[in-house]
Amino acid sequence: MVKWTRFETLSFVIIIGAWVSIYYFLELDWFRIPWTPMALIGTAVAFVIGFQNNAVYGRIWEARKIWGGIVNTSRTFGVYVQDMVTDEHAKESVSNDSIKKEVKILTYRHIAWMTALRYAMRNKKQWETTSKHRTNTEWGIKPPEMKSTLVEELKLYLSDDDLKEVMNKDNHQTAILYLQSHHIRKLKDKGIIWEFSFLELEALIKELFTLQGQTERIKNFPYPRQYASLNHYFMWLLLLLLPMALVPQFMDIGKEIAVNYPLWGDIFIWFTIPIYTAVAWMFHTMERIGRTGENPFEGTSNDVPISTISRGIEIDLRQNLGEDKSKIPVQFPAEHGVQF
Amino acid sequence: MVKWTRFETLSFVIIIGAWVSIYYFLELDWFRIPWTPMALIGTAVAFVIGFQNNAVYGRIWEARKIWGGIVNTSRTFGVYVQDMVTDEHAKESVSNDSIKKEVKILTYRHIAWMTALRYAMRNKKQWETTSKHRTNTEWGIKPPEMKSTLVEELKLYLSDDDLKEVMNKDNHQTAILYLQSHHIRKLKDKGIIWEFSFLELEALIKELFTLQGQTERIKNFPYPRQYASLNHYFMWLLLLLLPMALVPQFMDIGKEIAVNYPLWGDIFIWFTIPIYTAVAWMFHTMERIGRTGENPFEGTSNDVPISTISRGIEIDLRQNLGEDKSKIPVQFPAEHGVQF
Amino acid sequence: MVKWTRFETLSFVIIIGAWVSIYYFLELDWFRIPWTPMALIGTAVAFVIGFQNNAVYGRIWEARKIWGGIVNTSRTFGVYVQDMVTDEHAKESVSNDSIKKEVKILTYRHIAWMTALRYAMRNKKQWETTSKHRTNTEWGIKPPEMKSTLVEELKLYLSDDDLKEVMNKDNHQTAILYLQSHHIRKLKDKGIIWEFSFLELEALIKELFTLQGQTERIKNFPYPRQYASLNHYFMWLLLLLLPMALVPQFMDIGKEIAVNYPLWGDIFIWFTIPIYTAVAWMFHTMERIGRTGENPFEGTSNDVPISTISRGIEIDLRQNLGEDKSKIPVQFPAEHGVQF
Amino acid sequence: MVKWTRFETLSFVIIIGAWVSIYYFLELDWFRIPWTPMALIGTAVAFVIGFQNNAVYGRIWEARKIWGGIVNTSRTFGVYVQDMVTDEHAKESVSNDSIKKEVKILTYRHIAWMTALRYAMRNKKQWETTSKHRTNTEWGIKPPEMKSTLVEELKLYLSDDDLKEVMNKDNHQTAILYLQSHHIRKLKDKGIIWEFSFLELEALIKELFTLQGQTERIKNFPYPRQYASLNHYFMWLLLLLLPMALVPQFMDIGKEIAVNYPLWGDIFIWFTIPIYTAVAWMFHTMERIGRTGENPFEGTSNDVPISTISRGIEIDLRQNLGEDKSKIPVQFPAEHGVQF
Amino acid sequence: MVKWTRFETLSFVIIIGAWVSIYYFLELDWFRIPWTPMALIGTAVAFVIGFQNNAVYGRIWEARKIWGGIVNTSRTFGVYVQDMVTDEHAKESVSNDSIKKEVKILTYRHIAWMTALRYAMRNKKQWETTSKHRTNTEWGIKPPEMKSTLVEELKLYLSDDDLKEVMNKDNHQTAILYLQSHHIRKLKDKGIIWEFSFLELEALIKELFTLQGQTERIKNFPYPRQYASLNHYFMWLLLLLLPMALVPQFMDIGKEIAVNYPLWGDIFIWFTIPIYTAVAWMFHTMERIGRTGENPFEGTSNDVPISTISRGIEIDLRQNLGEDKSKIPVQFPAEHGVQF
Repeated sequence: MVKWTRFETLSFVIIIGAWVSIYYFLELDWFRIPWTPMALIGTAVAFVIGFQNNAVYGRIWEARKIWGGIVNTSRTFGVYVQDMVTDEHAKESVSNDSIKKEVKILTYRHIAWMTALRYAMRNKKQWETTSKHRTNTEWGIKPPEMKSTLVEELKLYLSDDDLKEVMNKDNHQTAILYLQSHHIRKLKDKGIIWEFSFLELEALIKELFTLQGQTERIKNFPYPRQYASLNHYFMWLLLLLLPMALVPQFMDIGKEIAVNYPLWGDIFIWFTIPIYTAVAWMFHTMERIGRTGENPFEGTSNDVPISTISRGIEIDLRQNLGEDKSKIPVQFPAEHGVQF
Repeated sequence: MVKWTRFETLSFVIIIGAWVSIYYFLELDWFRIPWTPMALIGTAVAFVIGFQNNAVYGRIWEARKIWGGIVNTSRTFGVYVQDMVTDEHAKESVSNDSIKKEVKILTYRHIAWMTALRYAMRNKKQWETTSKHRTNTEWGIKPPEMKSTLVEELKLYLSDDDLKEVMNKDNHQTAILYLQSHHIRKLKDKGIIWEFSFLELEALIKELFTLQGQTERIKNFPYPRQYASLNHYFMWLLLLLLPMALVPQFMDIGKEIAVNYPLWGDIFIWFTIPIYTAVAWMFHTMERIGRTGENPFEGTSNDVPISTISRGIEIDLRQNLGEDKSKIPVQFPAEHGVQF
Repeated sequence: MVKWTRFETLSFVIIIGAWVSIYYFLELDWFRIPWTPMALIGTAVAFVIGFQNNAVYGRIWEARKIWGGIVNTSRTFGVYVQDMVTDEHAKESVSNDSIKKEVKILTYRHIAWMTALRYAMRNKKQWETTSKHRTNTEWGIKPPEMKSTLVEELKLYLSDDDLKEVMNKDNHQTAILYLQSHHIRKLKDKGIIWEFSFLELEALIKELFTLQGQTERIKNFPYPRQYASLNHYFMWLLLLLLPMALVPQFMDIGKEIAVNYPLWGDIFIWFTIPIYTAVAWMFHTMERIGRTGENPFEGTSNDVPISTISRGIEIDLRQNLGEDKSKIPVQFPAEHGVQF
Repeated sequence: MVKWTRFETLSFVIIIGAWVSIYYFLELDWFRIPWTPMALIGTAVAFVIGFQNNAVYGRIWEARKIWGGIVNTSRTFGVYVQDMVTDEHAKESVSNDSIKKEVKILTYRHIAWMTALRYAMRNKKQWETTSKHRTNTEWGIKPPEMKSTLVEELKLYLSDDDLKEVMNKDNHQTAILYLQSHHIRKLKDKGIIWEFSFLELEALIKELFTLQGQTERIKNFPYPRQYASLNHYFMWLLLLLLPMALVPQFMDIGKEIAVNYPLWGDIFIWFTIPIYTAVAWMFHTMERIGRTGENPFEGTSNDVPISTISRGIEIDLRQNLGEDKSKIPVQFPAEHGVQF
Repeated sequence: MVKWTRFETLSFVIIIGAWVSIYYFLELDWFRIPWTPMALIGTAVAFVIGFQNNAVYGRIWEARKIWGGIVNTSRTFGVYVQDMVTDEHAKESVSNDSIKKEVKILTYRHIAWMTALRYAMRNKKQWETTSKHRTNTEWGIKPPEMKSTLVEELKLYLSDDDLKEVMNKDNHQTAILYLQSHHIRKLKDKGIIWEFSFLELEALIKELFTLQGQTERIKNFPYPRQYASLNHYFMWLLLLLLPMALVPQFMDIGKEIAVNYPLWGDIFIWFTIPIYTAVAWMFHTMERIGRTGENPFEGTSNDVPISTISRGIEIDLRQNLGEDKSKIPVQFPAEHGVQF
């Protein structure tokens, strides 16, 4: 964390260093702000940063719950498809193999839906700027979604016709769910899915639409801009006014000291630097941590790890489909301890 | 944000300028309020503004979730109608074309429901006054609902009979859902909708009634008036009493300075102006941002973008109906970065 | 709001006026409380008032959501009854008219349920005392439930037998829902309601029981007494101790002034009155606003407007039943801007 | 409330009286703690008490909602049983009387379930100590569950076989719901309950298991011990350190006074007693009120009134079963205004 | 609690002892930090610790609710399996014994699922470090999951084939639910489970997937690292800067005292030690309690008692299966008052 904020910490040292120098060399000790208005400002800043942190933590946690919901519904979808596609009600018997094939197509298409969804989550929005911050880019790590294209990935899970249809629509995820529903309906028409199981599976499609819509909502409705900038302005107002109240206070102590220890008293003012830096670092770090979490799918190290979650579910689904472990892709590696 | 509050900032400068002048020219330095009651007032103000911001942010976020729910249920409605209207259980076979026609009528009527709902959300309520504020009107942008009438819009999605029936009822949205339900029931009677699919579709009608009722609740039940005015009164009480405590403090510092630097000491009092303005601007901006969000459908730039959401769903639904992209209306443009 | 609190404001002026007089005429300037324990008390008071306001706002908002739920379920009930009562599965054909009659009886009985529920909400509980406060009674407005009796109202919607049965039970609302359920079951036995539609309608009865129970819970489980009195005691402790700390402070300033301006210095103490009144008014108003909302169905101007909501739904239901607008009662008028 | 805390108030008077005496007679005025660390401690105490009150109020309110849910589901169970037990699908006709008998057995067994549940809620847990506090026991009132045994009560609602089976299991409530389910299933096998109604009734059993589990969760998972003791320790740390900061402050004021009024100045120190007592009483009462609500089923006057709720539902269910009012037990009386 | 924090308390005594010695022997009384920046730091620390405690308490409570949900759904599963496995719809009659056997297999497999889940919850994550803290290990107690292996436990509830299949998958719990679903489906195919009961049981499988996913989410998504370290850094910054502001204050008082009582005045500075220790202990304990609850399944004494809950449900299920009490394992004993 100390390393992560090193640029800002440096700038605080420079700011306060400049102020102290001005006060020291220009003997500006008469110029000061009383502490009382600083206290009012401090209260206001504490309030808005507290508010931001609560709201932002709520966003991250909600995002994580939604993706937890995707995990749960995906597992349910996996097991329902296996146990509800059956020729029991079919007019004519269907081979076990062709049933297994249908199950596989449905399961793979579900993985395609998750893939399309996580690519959609990684689209850059104009208000997502955290990932451009210097300390966030220096390690050069980026989410898997930036290493290959959506089409490349979808090819692995969709037939060519499906792929073409899906890429032709603006919202790929929605298009995939339409395909799922149409497919399920066709299986019902053939009698391979019992009519009431069909209703259950359609209910899962509904649930997936809900989860998709919820994660899109978090992606598309940013933390209100007015609140976000409020934080920033208020914090800087505090940090910029603070030296005018703090340095003279240290000068006063310095003068008292100077009665007995002239040397210590003279240089005591420089001791403002670590104290100011500590205070500024605390308020700035609180604010920055708040900002970091505003967009939980942006592709930084504090994101909800949607790539890892999706891949985990893919492994789960394919293992329980009976696939050989060697054919299933492995989990995305955690680089520098960061899971995307 | 600085620009957005420029009128108020100016008024703070004038207020404090007046006070400083009075103190300076009338030598009123003996007239002062002690800081201790100011601290009690400051605490109370911080509390009520904090309370307001929490409550108001909760309102916006709830409103956004409701419209997210409308998105999800609309998509589900779209796919259910496509896969549940089928002649499988019909006494006599029905042509594919007439089934498609019914699907289209149902889907278009759903778009009409969304349209009626967003027009209802834009009705001006007596407590919605934010949009009249000078800085909110200067750009001259307004929501699409103020550029054409509801009848004009509904004409595109409803038959003439339906339109007449709908406009004849006080609550247009409710009337449209009654029409949907009657239509679905007629299709069930004809056997084009299986009886159990009919129950599922009726469950969606129920869900749409719930979402409609929720957004109407936010529209019609304002943030309690007593809390709203409390904020305003308390903030102004603080800002109006503050100069009487702040200016004398600067005068005291000024007098101390005057011992060594008579000139600086004399004019130091004027330095109250930027500090007071900073404090007043902070408290006022916090309060105003809180107020801005109280009515999230009022038609200002901080609204939940219901026009954009509705149009987005319309595009989604019609693309998946197989309509040609060129025939589908485009998304409302964002003017000055504002999406309605 | 200023008008609404005029009696308390007056009492604050009297209290502080008395204290100032005592201090002034008895030269009691040596008698004072230090500010530090006042700060501890102030913190405690701010905390409990903040706690109260959060809890109470939560209660109002929950009450409003429950009645929003009643709106939504009522609309659903209206449309379900219209589209699920049908002779499709009946052993022998039933005339359209008698079906319409059954629909009307069910819908009217639902309005009766809402009526009984809102009357139950207006029963006076021993802890509901806000409505007796002078400033709340001076306009002489009262909720519609106090202008006619429950029997008079129910007569309009229930048959004589039903009415007798309902008035014979302690909980009228519950009794009405039992009647609804028995009626629906009889229609199912006759085949006018399909068995699975019967299950859906019973599910609505369950939902109405839930909503009824929720609103009764808010009515019957008051905001915990211990918290409510805490607020009151703490606030008054603060307001009664405050003068002993505040007046001497003003006297001190007065003495300083007296060095240069004997007259001003002598009368400066009277300036405590507006400042104390401002502080006391703020804390008292915060506390009173909190108290006002504790019982959201009590019949004061800050209530959840349950009469208006019920009547609105009645109008909605009857318009969609096809009744002539002239035969439907109009909305309750808002007197002095207050909707009940 | 004043009466309720009289023992503690007395102990505060003694504590501060002792301190003042020590300071006064030993002339200990040089011994003092500066206010600044007291402010830090005060902040910490205010925070933890605030946290406790929020969490505890959340527990009470959740407990009340759960029992509200029991009310709602019980009413639904009552009406469902009446309208879903019918011989319509029975292989052979069943007499109306024997149907009524089955309805009565089911309804009575449901009352038995509520009874077993409320007895389980009254079991003493090792962390429930509030009810032993002197001021909580002096009136000698206790909940109805302590006036008769569970077996005596259950005898009124269960057959002998059922009773034996139920008492033989560790968790009586669960055993009763198993019996309900087995009974419902037998009725379904006989054809007296339609198979789909059977599913609805089983869903109610599920709901009752959920409600039972929720209330057991609140009973068995106490407010985390570490937080509870934190409160207590912190508050006492504040109250025990406070005199060392407060008394010297009053002594200082006393000395100032003594310049002009030697007598007043000398005895001024004793004025610390009411002020300290006020502050200590506030912090202690806040903490105690928080503690009181931690276990909402313990059997004190601030409990969720589960006995009253259960009895209320019993009356409701039996009135609607058509029983004569004279045969139905009356509501538990409220002693000293306390409802259990 | 005092005992639990004895190591830290000791370190605070050492820190402050060192500072006091330095000040005392080096006569460093001129070196000091003003209190005003300390107040800003104190506010920030109070805020972040408050935030942490709220978030962490929310996590514990959510975890407890999820396991409460597991209790409820397990009971429902137990009763549904007993009443929904029946040969009523079977093509050929099935012996009562073989039905009972199927019920037992399903119930035991459910216990196996709970067992696998609680073992998964006890896996050590890299961020779970609380259990390594000295005071948490000194009693040598550990959760039952560390006393025997998963395979040993599962052997008691699963057939050999099932066990092999389950251990072969990465996520054992998921594999068990797949087995349950396949088994239920086979029973449906045989006609021992009615098709609509099959849908209900599948819905329970879905619910179990949801509960499993929720508890895995809490396990796998730690309290965000950035917030956790913020707390730690901020608290230590406060505690390390505090002596530089606190000791000089006591020295000042000491000097005042020295005028009259030279001896007392000289040693007064040592009195800083208990006061500093009290303040430091409070802030540290608040922070540590927050940290303790971050990972509610880690295996410390403040955990959600998942082993006890699981075993409790096992006892419940097997008693209601009619097993002899002597054959059912007893509840895990609470060692040192700690339930795992």
